[in-house]
Amino acid sequence: SRSIDLAVIPGDGIGQEVVTQGLKVLNAVLPQDVKLETREYDLGAQRWHRTGETLPDAELEALKGHDAILLGAIGDPSVPSGVLERGLLLKLRFAFDHYVNLRPSKLFPNTATPLAGRPDIDFVVVREGTEGPYTGNGGSLRTGTEHEVATEVSVNTAFGVERVVRDAFARAAARPRKKLTLVHKNNVLVHAGHLWKNIFDKVAAENPEVTTDYLHVDAATIFFVTQPERFDVIVTDNLFGDILTDLAAAVTGGIGLAASGNINPTGAFPSMFEPVHGTAPDIAGQGKADPTATILSVALLLRHLGYEPEALRIEEAVSVDLAEREGKAARTTDEIGDALAVRVAS
Amino acid sequence: SRSIDLAVIPGDGIGQEVVTQGLKVLNAVLPQDVKLETREYDLGAQRWHRTGETLPDAELEALKGHDAILLGAIGDPSVPSGVLERGLLLKLRFAFDHYVNLRPSKLFPNTATPLAGRPDIDFVVVREGTEGPYTGNGGSLRTGTEHEVATEVSVNTAFGVERVVRDAFARAAARPRKKLTLVHKNNVLVHAGHLWKNIFDKVAAENPEVTTDYLHVDAATIFFVTQPERFDVIVTDNLFGDILTDLAAAVTGGIGLAASGNINPTGAFPSMFEPVHGTAPDIAGQGKADPTATILSVALLLRHLGYEPEALRIEEAVSVDLAEREGKAARTTDEIGDALAVRVAS
Ligand SMILES: CC(C)[C@H](C(=O)O)[C@@H](O)C(=O)O
Ligand SMILES: CC(C)[C@H](C(=O)O)[C@@H](O)C(=O)O
Repeated sequence: SRSIDLAVIPGDGIGQEVVTQGLKVLNAVLPQDVKLETREYDLGAQRWHRTGETLPDAELEALKGHDAILLGAIGDPSVPSGVLERGLLLKLRFAFDHYVNLRPSKLFPNTATPLAGRPDIDFVVVREGTEGPYTGNGGSLRTGTEHEVATEVSVNTAFGVERVVRDAFARAAARPRKKLTLVHKNNVLVHAGHLWKNIFDKVAAENPEVTTDYLHVDAATIFFVTQPERFDVIVTDNLFGDILTDLAAAVTGGIGLAASGNINPTGAFPSMFEPVHGTAPDIAGQGKADPTATILSVALLLRHLGYEPEALRIEEAVSVDLAEREGKAARTTDEIGDALAVRVAS
Repeated sequence: SRSIDLAVIPGDGIGQEVVTQGLKVLNAVLPQDVKLETREYDLGAQRWHRTGETLPDAELEALKGHDAILLGAIGDPSVPSGVLERGLLLKLRFAFDHYVNLRPSKLFPNTATPLAGRPDIDFVVVREGTEGPYTGNGGSLRTGTEHEVATEVSVNTAFGVERVVRDAFARAAARPRKKLTLVHKNNVLVHAGHLWKNIFDKVAAENPEVTTDYLHVDAATIFFVTQPERFDVIVTDNLFGDILTDLAAAVTGGIGLAASGNINPTGAFPSMFEPVHGTAPDIAGQGKADPTATILSVALLLRHLGYEPEALRIEEAVSVDLAEREGKAARTTDEIGDALAVRVAS
């Protein structure tokens, strides 16, 4: 009989609320014969305030043993910027070699978008997750003085770029439009940019069925708002992917709907699924958070573990729910979770 | 009697066409007693193809002698990416220490925007122009092999950050709303981010009349499309500024209207004014390019040189022209230039 051994990191702010709904829908969608085991990890701002720890080795070790990780959101204004991001969230992505940071963007029918004309948006960003400006290389000299010099080093390797580019080509090849856009800034960041472009061109030659193009990151932001329907799959660097996927979320109905997967396609380490949004401390604990992004992240989790029909059931349920939500009174976090749990179960 | 000694670099693609209109309007707006001298510099793709040169020392020296530089656009698909950008455009910005890259964004009445609801957009981005990931630091090892490592180093100094932050505070203080937003990514790029934030906070304490806030760059892109009216002045790093100002241009009617100034506020070197758009080789030579961004860049140039009434006349003419343009047949590059020249002269 099948089983899923899931680590759950609710985190801070609205993290706990949205994760509760994600688990509710996961329980509702799974076939009877699948045994779901969960273990919750107390990590985040409160833990740090209490113990000074962000991610102790013992817990990192324990997390390795699970099939996957569901994460709510991490961070709080009371914690200095960077402590939890670098010490917990990014530490997990790097330790578990989550080199594919997968972020689908779809404008569901009847949902809000700031764009006039409601373009037909349905693309996936494959964001590199373990290199680029996120490596933590760099430092500062004469810190705090008028002579301070602070550096940040973007590190890019042929190994790291090629594996994520190959993954993106495979994803593009599996979609009806079979189109892949590389986004970088190779006219300025010439070393990293040329590495990305050369590898992209090499892999493109091996995948003639995929149509390819290249955009500078600044130009890409223009198309995200003027012509988002032109995109199918996008592959890009860690930082550009961070920026572009928030923008993508904004044009497809908001960060409340944006799901993501931090994926290690080799299976060497558990992959981690989380909404793109943050902890939203201003609305935490009030039942106002939209759990849909987390629930869609659960769909990505299921797909990654091989439960494709269940993943699709969640995505279809969300699509119908969003369509019917329009014009209705705002529902609580719990009510949205309940509604989706009912839909996926039936 | 007054005079302006202007260097003109038309560059490539539509560069020549739009610069011609910029000069036409400049001539029309200047009072009789101001003597305008121009010298054209043949720099860009054609020159590079002919001689292999991007910006020879003699021309860099000669450019130094002018009061200001008007630049059209640089680049062509026939030149390897980065050659002209690094060897000419960025070389000028760095050689002339253009540390304030000024990019105003205004949604003029009746112009197109991809945003529903036509928010009230009127902000200025002060983009740092001489540091960050644009310094050209970095390199590659084992280039072209499967073991390649390519780095890009973002270099940030207290000196460089403080001067641009002070400039941004002064600009914010001079505007009615007096609001300044720092955009960075200090939860990930902790060294550079903390340098920026510390200096920003220090200068903020000296400028209590300016309201301040901070946004991560990814979150800023969301507000650019959902709530752009919240911004007044933004100060940010070179790369984030590059990305954000293209997005800003897109939401305020397109890159055809976005002006910029590469400013050295000390006057030690000539400042350079250019449209944000590129060379648009697909429409070059067809009279289809909109010269408005260049003409608005001429307004920034005039303001920088102390011709405030003339700068305002251009901006008002553009505003009226855009309002009346709506619904009319498309005009040629020349017709738009003519119309604006007539308006500013009267
Ligand atoms: C919180 C932060 C470290 C993170 C990132 O920059 O990757 C977030 O913005 C995201 O997109 O998941
Ligand atoms: C052409 C390129 C080097 C330049 C930049 O990145 O600064 C352009 O995008 C701009 O915004 O002026």
